[in-house]
Amino acid sequence: MTIRAATLADADAIWSIVGPILRAGETYALPRDWSRSDALSYWLSPDHEVFVAEAQGLVIGTYFLQANQRGGGAHVANCGYMTAPDSVGRGVATAMCRHSLGHAAARGFRAMQFNCVVSTNERAVKLWRHLGFDIVGTIPQAFEHPVLGFVDTLVMHRTL
Amino acid sequence: MTIRAATLADADAIWSIVGPILRAGETYALPRDWSRSDALSYWLSPDHEVFVAEAQGLVIGTYFLQANQRGGGAHVANCGYMTAPDSVGRGVATAMCRHSLGHAAARGFRAMQFNCVVSTNERAVKLWRHLGFDIVGTIPQAFEHPVLGFVDTLVMHRTL
Repeated sequence: MTIRAATLADADAIWSIVGPILRAGETYALPRDWSRSDALSYWLSPDHEVFVAEAQGLVIGTYFLQANQRGGGAHVANCGYMTAPDSVGRGVATAMCRHSLGHAAARGFRAMQFNCVVSTNERAVKLWRHLGFDIVGTIPQAFEHPVLGFVDTLVMHRTL
Repeated sequence: MTIRAATLADADAIWSIVGPILRAGETYALPRDWSRSDALSYWLSPDHEVFVAEAQGLVIGTYFLQANQRGGGAHVANCGYMTAPDSVGRGVATAMCRHSLGHAAARGFRAMQFNCVVSTNERAVKLWRHLGFDIVGTIPQAFEHPVLGFVDTLVMHRTL
């Protein structure tokens, strides 16, 4: 698996990953009905540095990195990661997160923070903990899960 | 004191409040060097519903209300409040926060969340607690205060 900067030529591959995850609405606080254009405008927004994970010439994951806040908060990075459904369980998210931690540190960020980890996304919570993130906040019922109803979200953080 | 929806005619008054608070850089994770245009584009952004507090015909405070997240997180409101420096201590923030809680509930939001309360902003923390907010997260050293250096930020939350 290699991880490289995304280009506009990756747009179709990125949408093929982002689209189903948005539609499911179980892990990201983003509109389930976003069009391809809406989703790509967000994922590839000018504030995001975007990467893709590639194996055998296929894009199997993508992530973005941005500053979590501006001004006095600009030293903390934030990322969003998505893995292609048929590549889940192959270490793609782990590889992307490790890559992002290194890249964020190289860019001078001092920490990384996830603002809205859905507590029922157990795979993600376990993975982030394994990669050194602490749960530093729990927001009661901050996410409306399409199946489970209102569930907590977590703020997760690690220093770089 | 009355609280009403802001209009474009309030732009000068809003900038006279927002500008010095941005320049000080002690309470908001926003760029200290933003121009009037940058600041007003943010404060009056299409996603923000903006109000002003007025007394004797003078605007002495302003706040915005928005959804804190999209999609499954769109039932939680978020606000930012700023009081004119020479009106601090007169209950302006209290009045604006109470107004925002009522307005958010009327709009159907189920909770309100502040993502980045600077822990050294003791007046604000005390006020939000008094108004029913709980500290549900503490992010270590997430804000670089121009005088105090890296300080914690708080996530504060209350149901509506």
